[in-house]
Amino acid sequence: MIHAKLPKIWYGGDYNPEQWDKEVMDEDLRMFNLAGIDVATINVFSWALSQPNEDTYDFTWLDDIINRLHANGTYVCLATSTGAHPAWMAKKYPDVCRVDFEGRKHKFGKRHNSCPNSPTYRTYSERIAEKLAERYKDHEAVLIWHVSNEYGGYCYCDHCADAFRTWLQTRYTTLDQLNKAWYTGFWGHTFYDWEEIVPPNVLSDEEPGERSFFQSISLDYRRFMSDSLLDCYKLEYNAIRRHCPELPITTNLMGLYKELDYFKWAPYLDVISWDNYPSLDTPVSLTSMTHDLMRGLKDGQPFMLMEQTPSQQNWQKYNSLKRPGVMKLWSYQAVAHGADTILFFQLRRSAGACEKFHGAVIEHVGHEHTRVFRECAELGHELVRLSDKVLDARVKARVGIVFDWENRWAIGLSSGPTIALNYVDEVHKYYDALFQQNIQADLIGTNTDLTGYDIVIAPVLYMVKDGYAKRVEQFVHAGGTFLTTFFSGIVNEHDRVTLGGYPGELRNVLGIWAEEIDALFPDQSNQIQLNEQWGGLDGSYKCGILCDLIHAEGAEVKAVYGTDFYQGMPVLTVNKYGAGQAWYVASSPEPAFLQGLLGNLCQDKGITAPIPPVPGVEVSTRTNEQNESFVFILNHNDQATTIVLGELKGTDLISGDFIENAATLSAKQVLIIEV
Amino acid sequence: MIHAKLPKIWYGGDYNPEQWDKEVMDEDLRMFNLAGIDVATINVFSWALSQPNEDTYDFTWLDDIINRLHANGTYVCLATSTGAHPAWMAKKYPDVCRVDFEGRKHKFGKRHNSCPNSPTYRTYSERIAEKLAERYKDHEAVLIWHVSNEYGGYCYCDHCADAFRTWLQTRYTTLDQLNKAWYTGFWGHTFYDWEEIVPPNVLSDEEPGERSFFQSISLDYRRFMSDSLLDCYKLEYNAIRRHCPELPITTNLMGLYKELDYFKWAPYLDVISWDNYPSLDTPVSLTSMTHDLMRGLKDGQPFMLMEQTPSQQNWQKYNSLKRPGVMKLWSYQAVAHGADTILFFQLRRSAGACEKFHGAVIEHVGHEHTRVFRECAELGHELVRLSDKVLDARVKARVGIVFDWENRWAIGLSSGPTIALNYVDEVHKYYDALFQQNIQADLIGTNTDLTGYDIVIAPVLYMVKDGYAKRVEQFVHAGGTFLTTFFSGIVNEHDRVTLGGYPGELRNVLGIWAEEIDALFPDQSNQIQLNEQWGGLDGSYKCGILCDLIHAEGAEVKAVYGTDFYQGMPVLTVNKYGAGQAWYVASSPEPAFLQGLLGNLCQDKGITAPIPPVPGVEVSTRTNEQNESFVFILNHNDQATTIVLGELKGTDLISGDFIENAATLSAKQVLIIEV
Amino acid sequence: MIHAKLPKIWYGGDYNPEQWDKEVMDEDLRMFNLAGIDVATINVFSWALSQPNEDTYDFTWLDDIINRLHANGTYVCLATSTGAHPAWMAKKYPDVCRVDFEGRKHKFGKRHNSCPNSPTYRTYSERIAEKLAERYKDHEAVLIWHVSNEYGGYCYCDHCADAFRTWLQTRYTTLDQLNKAWYTGFWGHTFYDWEEIVPPNVLSDEEPGERSFFQSISLDYRRFMSDSLLDCYKLEYNAIRRHCPELPITTNLMGLYKELDYFKWAPYLDVISWDNYPSLDTPVSLTSMTHDLMRGLKDGQPFMLMEQTPSQQNWQKYNSLKRPGVMKLWSYQAVAHGADTILFFQLRRSAGACEKFHGAVIEHVGHEHTRVFRECAELGHELVRLSDKVLDARVKARVGIVFDWENRWAIGLSSGPTIALNYVDEVHKYYDALFQQNIQADLIGTNTDLTGYDIVIAPVLYMVKDGYAKRVEQFVHAGGTFLTTFFSGIVNEHDRVTLGGYPGELRNVLGIWAEEIDALFPDQSNQIQLNEQWGGLDGSYKCGILCDLIHAEGAEVKAVYGTDFYQGMPVLTVNKYGAGQAWYVASSPEPAFLQGLLGNLCQDKGITAPIPPVPGVEVSTRTNEQNESFVFILNHNDQATTIVLGELKGTDLISGDFIENAATLSAKQVLIIEV
Repeated sequence: MIHAKLPKIWYGGDYNPEQWDKEVMDEDLRMFNLAGIDVATINVFSWALSQPNEDTYDFTWLDDIINRLHANGTYVCLATSTGAHPAWMAKKYPDVCRVDFEGRKHKFGKRHNSCPNSPTYRTYSERIAEKLAERYKDHEAVLIWHVSNEYGGYCYCDHCADAFRTWLQTRYTTLDQLNKAWYTGFWGHTFYDWEEIVPPNVLSDEEPGERSFFQSISLDYRRFMSDSLLDCYKLEYNAIRRHCPELPITTNLMGLYKELDYFKWAPYLDVISWDNYPSLDTPVSLTSMTHDLMRGLKDGQPFMLMEQTPSQQNWQKYNSLKRPGVMKLWSYQAVAHGADTILFFQLRRSAGACEKFHGAVIEHVGHEHTRVFRECAELGHELVRLSDKVLDARVKARVGIVFDWENRWAIGLSSGPTIALNYVDEVHKYYDALFQQNIQADLIGTNTDLTGYDIVIAPVLYMVKDGYAKRVEQFVHAGGTFLTTFFSGIVNEHDRVTLGGYPGELRNVLGIWAEEIDALFPDQSNQIQLNEQWGGLDGSYKCGILCDLIHAEGAEVKAVYGTDFYQGMPVLTVNKYGAGQAWYVASSPEPAFLQGLLGNLCQDKGITAPIPPVPGVEVSTRTNEQNESFVFILNHNDQATTIVLGELKGTDLISGDFIENAATLSAKQVLIIEV
Repeated sequence: MIHAKLPKIWYGGDYNPEQWDKEVMDEDLRMFNLAGIDVATINVFSWALSQPNEDTYDFTWLDDIINRLHANGTYVCLATSTGAHPAWMAKKYPDVCRVDFEGRKHKFGKRHNSCPNSPTYRTYSERIAEKLAERYKDHEAVLIWHVSNEYGGYCYCDHCADAFRTWLQTRYTTLDQLNKAWYTGFWGHTFYDWEEIVPPNVLSDEEPGERSFFQSISLDYRRFMSDSLLDCYKLEYNAIRRHCPELPITTNLMGLYKELDYFKWAPYLDVISWDNYPSLDTPVSLTSMTHDLMRGLKDGQPFMLMEQTPSQQNWQKYNSLKRPGVMKLWSYQAVAHGADTILFFQLRRSAGACEKFHGAVIEHVGHEHTRVFRECAELGHELVRLSDKVLDARVKARVGIVFDWENRWAIGLSSGPTIALNYVDEVHKYYDALFQQNIQADLIGTNTDLTGYDIVIAPVLYMVKDGYAKRVEQFVHAGGTFLTTFFSGIVNEHDRVTLGGYPGELRNVLGIWAEEIDALFPDQSNQIQLNEQWGGLDGSYKCGILCDLIHAEGAEVKAVYGTDFYQGMPVLTVNKYGAGQAWYVASSPEPAFLQGLLGNLCQDKGITAPIPPVPGVEVSTRTNEQNESFVFILNHNDQATTIVLGELKGTDLISGDFIENAATLSAKQVLIIEV
Repeated sequence: MIHAKLPKIWYGGDYNPEQWDKEVMDEDLRMFNLAGIDVATINVFSWALSQPNEDTYDFTWLDDIINRLHANGTYVCLATSTGAHPAWMAKKYPDVCRVDFEGRKHKFGKRHNSCPNSPTYRTYSERIAEKLAERYKDHEAVLIWHVSNEYGGYCYCDHCADAFRTWLQTRYTTLDQLNKAWYTGFWGHTFYDWEEIVPPNVLSDEEPGERSFFQSISLDYRRFMSDSLLDCYKLEYNAIRRHCPELPITTNLMGLYKELDYFKWAPYLDVISWDNYPSLDTPVSLTSMTHDLMRGLKDGQPFMLMEQTPSQQNWQKYNSLKRPGVMKLWSYQAVAHGADTILFFQLRRSAGACEKFHGAVIEHVGHEHTRVFRECAELGHELVRLSDKVLDARVKARVGIVFDWENRWAIGLSSGPTIALNYVDEVHKYYDALFQQNIQADLIGTNTDLTGYDIVIAPVLYMVKDGYAKRVEQFVHAGGTFLTTFFSGIVNEHDRVTLGGYPGELRNVLGIWAEEIDALFPDQSNQIQLNEQWGGLDGSYKCGILCDLIHAEGAEVKAVYGTDFYQGMPVLTVNKYGAGQAWYVASSPEPAFLQGLLGNLCQDKGITAPIPPVPGVEVSTRTNEQNESFVFILNHNDQATTIVLGELKGTDLISGDFIENAATLSAKQVLIIEV
């Protein structure tokens, strides 16, 4: 869709020639071509350069850069430069600066420094986006618009407080409804005037470490802040759209970033783009899950890998080099999960400030005779050969895993029952259990249509939004397999408990009642004791963190607790409901259990892996509209690894070899088998 | 004393029907009666509800609730609702909001949010207490007044600064005396005008983590803050008393809570009440010690257990369920140590905000068919059967352990010699050594009369207040056994060192001189080497944290250090003084040593246990004015445990069985043997 | 030089008789004489006492104290009392109070509390110094001036912001040059007006934990703050000098203290003085290195030990006593490295406030019959016997180790490649490798003349200042041996990367190119594999933290990496350059490797130890102008230790014994062999 002008996997990344002399840019352009780099993201942080004061705009430097790139055959991803405001603006209009969580008014510095409800910021960010759109809307080099940069961070200033009150009036209409939704009878918090409401930070209802004393207020502030930043994005989006009706517009997201509800943002992005910065010790499957989440934001539409590092980061504790082959491996991992671009931060390393030790295609040495450049160039040439092969092809998953930012916030904010519960970790446990068996999943939001899936897994679905339980019931009734876990069905979207017994609105479909919830100390565990051998599951498995004490109310008990005073109570149940099944896992199990359980459920649904699982080898398939499939096989191991292909055979698009029966992949090798 | 209207162990707890519809309250009332619940604490956080603005008070909702409770046979513990101020008040009169330790002025939120020296808070909290007293003083349902809630937290605003200066003028009369007491010659801190004095926080003389650069200022600020909050309490107390001359008045304390000097508060409470929230890993004996401390605040007068959870907390890291039988066991533990009420927080779980995962008698499911409710009801019925049996009975301990908040503050604030010294831990070590031998102790303040005791133990009596050393001398001279430890007798009440050799004013009675104080690293230890076998003590024991290098000056040396350059110097001494003995333990010993030592001392005094100690079994005896005794035997073990009763025999008030010779208690079982 | 009036090692320390009654001072004077104490540092914190308000100065108390000391034969080190401002000044002129890193304006309290750019502080600190100088300039008792106390701490107030801008204008002349130096094109930080620049703290470009988002700004702020405090010092220095042309003037430094660039301070101190507070677990060689650093500040000129504790500190976590003999051992350690005074903090322990548990010659007991006093007196008498023997003698080291505060700041501020890199630790590793072999080193600054050295070691010379590479080239070309390490030659003094390949300006002399820099996790390591046995080096050694991936470009490869994808790449190289050698150590090695390497380099240069190394025995030699040498041999072991003397023989100045062949030193014993 976005590839009209350049129908291949875009290759390139962030580029800041304004930090350099012109001679350097000549060298860069030469090397871009050497490496097969065809896209440069520019103008990300040039606001102060283009607008040296309130009344002056000067884009001649940008004209020059774009024209030179264009002349070189390099396309442009054009940013709007509003990711950090100029110093003169902070001085003249302090409302652009944020008040932080501690209540401190900031001066000038860092990134992410603009208050999203600052009238000044809104006015001038929209204005410069508009000016850029007017100027470059028809430039042949421009492929796409890149609004601002990595939106994030909250503000607690008086402008935000006012905007929050307005936002609340829209949401609740009356204070009476707000008081009810927020449960303000507790601790005498009743509000009699909208003006009495203040943003929740350390000066009011929160403490550092995601601790809140009024969850519903804190939840709404997160929604409001996510919306406020989205409003800033939309202002720029619309300004561009007014002048440039056709080019796609996006902003670069940050994967699992906590503070923004990306499912609410996604409709306003023409294409999802995101920045992928795994560490040496990030589990491979967590990166895959994040790609799948980004893909899920727009229901499977391919996305852009907007940033990754060619070699190392600067902001991690220990910034290891990407080992030989890893950059390419992780690039194809992105493509395997739906990316249609591979872009770096950045093309040339900065010589100063805080990102000078962040890797780049062109290192400080300045020439092409480096390992990093060679690997980048090798990939660049492979991508040229791949041409438009996999573009727009989709991942066809039959399992959906629910990921919900509002639920995540609510769990994080909860006071009790345990600090050990981490929503992302719990989701990842289920994802990983499938991943290890070469079974693909979509990460889906709470608005995603469930009808396309055979299995829907909703780990720790603590918050059940209005209508969602009904949709789950319909899905199961129609034959779907639904699975959820301990600490689910507890609250509504205001974090108010659904009375009448946990898991609340899900109780009916699950056929159980959770009477109590036990929190285990980190050195404690319980066991999941299978009632009988079942597929890959037999005997007993460890579990912990939380243990729901449940009663079967119609559900069949598949396993019970092995110890403690609730020994013998159900820990795994399945409820037949219409044509389908609803499963409940009452505690957080060890991986072996989850692999067995999900293996069984997939087997029931006839969901199979394209090839048998081999440790360290990842498999992902994309299928295009012509039903051609591309099976990506990625060897994450540090040594050569042999896989058995079974039925699978076809041509490897990278090597051109025809692959069948079995194959031995060298360390970090990737196959893209066209079948 | 407090039980005139309801002569039994009151049973019930906090109740917030204003958070619910009326139908829910009907259900609650039904279930209260099912469970034997006869007391509800209400109106704790309803200030905003009763006073929606500055000029309006409306208690009709409260009338209704009290009347409905009364009609149901449920009595009322009536709170004054001033534990958190309304939002409108914070908006209109910001002086009610605190300035925190970091110097930040707060807005609205959380609990404990009122400045104790705020004119607004003082005016309006007194006024609403007065209005409540006028209205409900004669209501038959009301048993007792509950002022505010869990007083605590400091403020550092300008109102507090002014009040601090006034408080200091009263205390020191002249700046000259203040400068002397505070030792302001150090670091050029001399004050020439009262206005130069500022509250000690990060903006002046303190750092986070209880670090002070001027201990005497910090100590006085703690005294002042404790007094300021007490003044708030007294304003309400007097307002109530003006209208309601007879009903008891209390406020709920928090056991070992650090910030308030409860011994200074106790005279103004008609009955001590407190909130008991042990964690799964809280030592049993620490809970017992805390009960004994609360009992000691008013010289042994029985107290109220004002709050405990039926099942779990929400604010701990890992909120484990109370195992079956534990709630009942811990309830009787409170009674065994002097509680004459068993009240919960709370009777019905909140549906929203930050305490919704705090356990309650009635859980979110809303009915009585839960384990928690069943256990509560079982206890309720037992308490009905107990009737007025143990009411007002006293614990008759012959050992007193000194606990002093000012000493605790001073030790905590001390810069050097070690950060490893924790006052409460050291007190608990001595308490526990007795506890493990079934020997009861009173926790006593520095004003408590010593003449009733055979043994007085004062661990780490760093601060010796004016006249106290003389009282210790009199106690020992008259035949008492006194024991103190390393780092004692160092300073006076202004944290000024008593010159002339440690342990200062105690040197005479102890017959020793501590020349130096060595601080050990956490991985270091020394040994206590007995000079000869003595009772249960023989050989060598570990010690650490601090090691005083002492010289005997008349005292007999019972044990010496085993290693380091002070090997062979005394570590345990006893000084004969008049008819008594004064002991000095020069380091912090391992438990086995303390059990042996205190066992010996008790044996000397003929203090014996009612039954021989059995691990995990706690014994406590209450005796009433008719000299009837009730021996509580509590099995804290997870398994059945047999005890040998020896001479002890009598009827178990819970089961009605006659017990003699020996008994086997099931896990968590309690006996109350009337002898 | 400073010893004209009192030609011996001065002995005494801080003394605060103004905290005491006169009778106490009489006792003190008696005991000073008992202990051989002949110098008292007074008036350190007496500003508030001498100047009770803006218009009044009263030094009569000080006259009295000085006269009494003088009459007793005790000399005076006279402080200016400006180490903490009076409370009345903070109240009347809040500009004297600092704004801290968090942006909080402080009130009154603590130490180090004055803003260095406060007009009030500058005016009044200069004025009182001047008044003191006028009054005491000719007093026979006064030996030296002690300006303020332990300068340190930064301020971020508006006065500092203004002064910073002025400082920057002087440094950069134009904003254009500043923008270029600071690399403000990054993240749109371009400044168009000086007023837009704000101090870097949490409200702008820094975060706690030495994290900066603009290294060049943060670096300049550190330089500016160091200069600002130095300006304060210079104001007082000049005020004194105007009246008192001859007496030396100093201020007490703090060894490795991070915030001040002591090499920039040193020219303004007539003699270096510093405060030495090792902990029980401080490596012996780190204390020695710090002495050598202090000696290096003025190119080897002997220094003053201005403070140490006779027994224990108060501000460490676990304040262990100095074991018997340790105080004396560490005192001679200072002398061995160039100290010509031994002064304590303090002579009498304070009775109140936060340093009352800091050790003193006279303890709280108040008499001389303590272990601490006895040891102090023993040392005092030895120093009397030593007379002027070692005064002004120099340490003649042939190895120089570069220590640079600006480089240290830059490394600390760096975002990436690792948080594990600690500059001081890396310098200490090299120092310790020599120390363990009884080879002495000078710690030298980047302005120190290199020509006197055979070997110059510059660990982690990340920042190479203008002209320094040229000086290194000259040094090597002339025959010197230069050694540097990984992560060197990266940036210029503005923290801007030197392009064209690491190690930048050092690449030529080193003959290598560092292509990449790998950061290892704490549990990772690599190996240094020797190509062949070489002197004490053979086989393989561990290394870690960072691994430069280097290519030899003319340099000889002595060792290669043992594992990982850069196995076989060089890790130790030597480049012949002119008559000398330039070494590169590409990772951080284990101690055994460094001992072998530096042993080999010293052997090549004919640098030998005076006696063979024995574990725990330190050796240091001072040589005077008459070429008499004093070999200090210090036994840090807890047991007697035998050393072999070889050629070395002479009279031990402490015992008077003639020592030759071999000697057995008792635990903590010191020999000073005159040869």
